[in-house]
Amino acid sequence: MLADDPLGATRERPGDPAYAAAFEEVDGDPRQVLAVAVLGDEVVGTLQLTCTPGLSRMGMTRATIEAVRVRADQRGRRLGEALVGWAIDEARARGCGTVQLTTDASRVDAHRFYERLGFTPSHVGMKLGL
Amino acid sequence: MLADDPLGATRERPGDPAYAAAFEEVDGDPRQVLAVAVLGDEVVGTLQLTCTPGLSRMGMTRATIEAVRVRADQRGRRLGEALVGWAIDEARARGCGTVQLTTDASRVDAHRFYERLGFTPSHVGMKLGL
Repeated sequence: MLADDPLGATRERPGDPAYAAAFEEVDGDPRQVLAVAVLGDEVVGTLQLTCTPGLSRMGMTRATIEAVRVRADQRGRRLGEALVGWAIDEARARGCGTVQLTTDASRVDAHRFYERLGFTPSHVGMKLGL
Repeated sequence: MLADDPLGATRERPGDPAYAAAFEEVDGDPRQVLAVAVLGDEVVGTLQLTCTPGLSRMGMTRATIEAVRVRADQRGRRLGEALVGWAIDEARARGCGTVQLTTDASRVDAHRFYERLGFTPSHVGMKLGL
């Protein structure tokens, strides 16, 4: 699903052993949640939720959502809404004071999607490749 | 320093015990780096660097910079540049493939500052308070 996406297609290589190593890293960290949406016995969506402790805002823990994907043949069924809604509830249950995410400026549909879910596009997301 | 800032002033309460508890959380997590800039024997700047493992982009680890502050009486001396430059080097040394951050849309000076350091304002930063 990460590769089946206009941006992902250019930067993923399904089957590469790097993914298994990264999965171990994510799975072994209690502050990371790698969630999948399952329909019947098929995985149809995924996202990663990260809880980051910090000092600002009176020691608030921030939740960050990354890598949200819904399988192409399952779009338009509000699975993304259910998946992100679940992540928001999970962040709240873990004591996070805010949920944040960045979306590529070119993903206009994604901006509308997140605004419908209550997010505010209040920030500029800056990136620097290393 | 977190409180001595137009936005921070409205949301911090220096001295509150919540900060000590949050510090323990940050300090106990090997993926968090809480850095301070020291001039003589005084702390004049701070930031938090977080390394987040993930599956996308071939299992790339992302570095996130948060809570960048330089003490008001020390601004204009390029300490922020040195501090963020240090964080970029540290992220690279820790094997991160990208450095990301969000800045409030109202912090226009901050946008220019990060663009000077090589960051691209390629994303929209979405926030949802819980």
